[in-house]
Amino acid sequence: MPGIAFGRIDDSFSVGSLKAYLAEFISTLLFVFAGVGSAIAYNKLTADAALDPAGLVAVAVCHGFGLFVAVAVGANISGGHVNPAVTFGLALGGQITILTGLFYIIAQLLGSIVACLLLKVVTGGLAVPIHNVAAGVGALEGVVMEIIITFALVYTVYATAADPKKGSLGTIAPIAIGFIVGANILAAGPFSGGSMNPARSFGPAVASGDFTNNWIYWAGPLVGGGLAGLTYSNVFMQNEHAPISSDF
Amino acid sequence: MPGIAFGRIDDSFSVGSLKAYLAEFISTLLFVFAGVGSAIAYNKLTADAALDPAGLVAVAVCHGFGLFVAVAVGANISGGHVNPAVTFGLALGGQITILTGLFYIIAQLLGSIVACLLLKVVTGGLAVPIHNVAAGVGALEGVVMEIIITFALVYTVYATAADPKKGSLGTIAPIAIGFIVGANILAAGPFSGGSMNPARSFGPAVASGDFTNNWIYWAGPLVGGGLAGLTYSNVFMQNEHAPISSDF
Amino acid sequence: MPGIAFGRIDDSFSVGSLKAYLAEFISTLLFVFAGVGSAIAYNKLTADAALDPAGLVAVAVCHGFGLFVAVAVGANISGGHVNPAVTFGLALGGQITILTGLFYIIAQLLGSIVACLLLKVVTGGLAVPIHNVAAGVGALEGVVMEIIITFALVYTVYATAADPKKGSLGTIAPIAIGFIVGANILAAGPFSGGSMNPARSFGPAVASGDFTNNWIYWAGPLVGGGLAGLTYSNVFMQNEHAPISSDF
Amino acid sequence: MPGIAFGRIDDSFSVGSLKAYLAEFISTLLFVFAGVGSAIAYNKLTADAALDPAGLVAVAVCHGFGLFVAVAVGANISGGHVNPAVTFGLALGGQITILTGLFYIIAQLLGSIVACLLLKVVTGGLAVPIHNVAAGVGALEGVVMEIIITFALVYTVYATAADPKKGSLGTIAPIAIGFIVGANILAAGPFSGGSMNPARSFGPAVASGDFTNNWIYWAGPLVGGGLAGLTYSNVFMQNEHAPISSDF
Repeated sequence: MPGIAFGRIDDSFSVGSLKAYLAEFISTLLFVFAGVGSAIAYNKLTADAALDPAGLVAVAVCHGFGLFVAVAVGANISGGHVNPAVTFGLALGGQITILTGLFYIIAQLLGSIVACLLLKVVTGGLAVPIHNVAAGVGALEGVVMEIIITFALVYTVYATAADPKKGSLGTIAPIAIGFIVGANILAAGPFSGGSMNPARSFGPAVASGDFTNNWIYWAGPLVGGGLAGLTYSNVFMQNEHAPISSDF
Repeated sequence: MPGIAFGRIDDSFSVGSLKAYLAEFISTLLFVFAGVGSAIAYNKLTADAALDPAGLVAVAVCHGFGLFVAVAVGANISGGHVNPAVTFGLALGGQITILTGLFYIIAQLLGSIVACLLLKVVTGGLAVPIHNVAAGVGALEGVVMEIIITFALVYTVYATAADPKKGSLGTIAPIAIGFIVGANILAAGPFSGGSMNPARSFGPAVASGDFTNNWIYWAGPLVGGGLAGLTYSNVFMQNEHAPISSDF
Repeated sequence: MPGIAFGRIDDSFSVGSLKAYLAEFISTLLFVFAGVGSAIAYNKLTADAALDPAGLVAVAVCHGFGLFVAVAVGANISGGHVNPAVTFGLALGGQITILTGLFYIIAQLLGSIVACLLLKVVTGGLAVPIHNVAAGVGALEGVVMEIIITFALVYTVYATAADPKKGSLGTIAPIAIGFIVGANILAAGPFSGGSMNPARSFGPAVASGDFTNNWIYWAGPLVGGGLAGLTYSNVFMQNEHAPISSDF
Repeated sequence: MPGIAFGRIDDSFSVGSLKAYLAEFISTLLFVFAGVGSAIAYNKLTADAALDPAGLVAVAVCHGFGLFVAVAVGANISGGHVNPAVTFGLALGGQITILTGLFYIIAQLLGSIVACLLLKVVTGGLAVPIHNVAAGVGALEGVVMEIIITFALVYTVYATAADPKKGSLGTIAPIAIGFIVGANILAAGPFSGGSMNPARSFGPAVASGDFTNNWIYWAGPLVGGGLAGLTYSNVFMQNEHAPISSDF
């Protein structure tokens, strides 16, 4: 069982830690600006018509590409979490202390809020769409959907980036992390919206003042991300020698 | 001729092997959840209208991105097969024993079934679409289509991942494996559906209880994958010194 | 604070420098030819109808893929800037001298102009669309939009390519640089157009003789790129030891 | 000036050379099967309606993904040319002998023809669409378009794969080569069709028996590819004494 560590206050205020918080703030800001921006752009192009397949592709590709880059540009400074569910999943697997993780999450939330406020400015005050379950989809179904797809995301973070055995997978880790989000939005978009990220959902809620069902996008991602962190770190990151060698 | 090996029972039940089965189960679950989910999402957005080009792009990109990640996250644990046709093609080329391969395939089938059952839950019971040949396309044409495109997939697995001479290609192998599936769905989607993967097709059949033409998605992929394994391993993986050196 | 250097005349006329200018000219030509070409292609396919989601995906993917390749093919010769805002941001961070940077920018502008003139020839004289703010979007909003998204682009250039600590991120840097542009076009396309690049906007203005609002695509990208250069180089490229190690 | 070499007959019939021809045949077959297949799929889904933006994205993404993989799987065996214009451009730059290059081209043409005949079989005899200039586009405009976009492709092959200074760019070379084709199809599709590859155009002409304007897709790509080979090898590959390595 990997150790969950609370952490020391002074470690969380070192120069390196402060830089990491800034990097998380910037990465999340840039990711949410592009992602939420693409949803606003769709609404503008179609005069707020219902989502269609071309729009779903546009939004999914934008989130996939944007998250890939946001993770990449933060990777060497903060690890490129860009997501409270990722930070939480990494804390449960002993990859970051609870205390530093809390500051990461605050930085991510602030980045998302600033991104959404900036979007209101540059679009001349257009509505910032919030995540919500689609008509006919229950809250519980939404939570379960978010649990499953966030499990996929944080499992990907572990396998390609956090696992010391990752090898050359580390080179393409940011692409994998971005693209699993793109794929999952193509599946979950018309149901739960496909957030996988409390910060991605919280910023639009603050900017629009509409917190309807916002809890779904905390509960689902944190449970899914936590489960992935516990599963991967306990099952696949034990120090025992692996009998199946695989550089495949 | 590479050796096809049956394998020893105790090797197939080592801790490492059990972890590999679990990794195949999880990778296949996550891939099928996204892929089949994108097909359900399309049906919902268009009220079950016929496939159109934007929908084909959505489904193909989702499968391409999702398979890339599913292969990547399994790569260091199980090799990231995520597909009975890949496992079969690798067994014929002597890359995995028959016995361990059988357990891989069972894990993949279970992962796909669980993914489809979960999709029924989170979508409130929407229909899980099965693979089938399109109207006007015969079963034999479907089988030949699946043979050709699965040959492409397993040939890609060999050239970028299994071949010891792969070099830096190994770094982008999961992307190549995912993207050949995305490309082939764009071509085969309106004909055979573009499965290339018995597990991908079996889960929806179980979840919907509809096994019509399911045999096509066993026969085509296994023949195509087997042919690719035999071709690549016998022609391009001989131990003789290669006169054309290549570090490209 | 990194040093901003003016540079020596003879350094700017070395054989290596001349090759770099030619590489910038060719890379920008090929990028603008594809990017502007995709906008002309959309206009032709839809008889100049308003942008729709499928068209936005086409234009964004073309710019993303095209810029990735343009950066990659220039990387080892000129660094693959392909953009005056990138060159300016790198000059403010001390990565290129002012004088050499000026020649880079001239080469980029010439490449873009030639690309647009060639497009007029091969399309039989179709209109070359210029960047402009959409109806209902003010010039100031357009400038702020361009500042933010160009900040994202040049920040990405620093984190993945210019930072000596980039490590294996350098391998995928051209992909990240291309894809952040693709993502940002999906968000900014229906507002400011999503240029992030004065050369990309200047060529169409010259070829069409229409310089309406062209200043927006100089002011926004240069301010955004400059801010990114100053921020990243001063905050994240200091030589002090980083307390948070991260190979994640 | 790099040396153009005719080559020795026995070198062209070594075991390694024969494997390389087979690899080119298979790679081209798989690429053309997916690429032309996506065009047939579009025609089927839309009942032969005119190309629209969603269809252009589908066809461009399929060619981009498919070519990436075709280049990757051939890279370590034949260099992964998959295209007579690439082989010709590499021969003019001294990267492959004339004689071996001729056999490469024959293998590529055969692969494309077989792919198109297979497509007729598996689609129940649907028409195989040929490349041709669009209505209102002259043959000369088509040739110039193909020259420019093939220049981009072969320049990319040189910069990312053939240049000994490529460094870590070599890892992502197949992706760059595939994606420049995807980007160029998004621009050139509604004008010249965006072939860049005589083999890609020749197979459909043979399968359909319609050679109208087929010469355009020989003249344009060979001139553009040859220009790129001469330019890159003479300007950017000087100062190395790399005579004739069939390394690529």
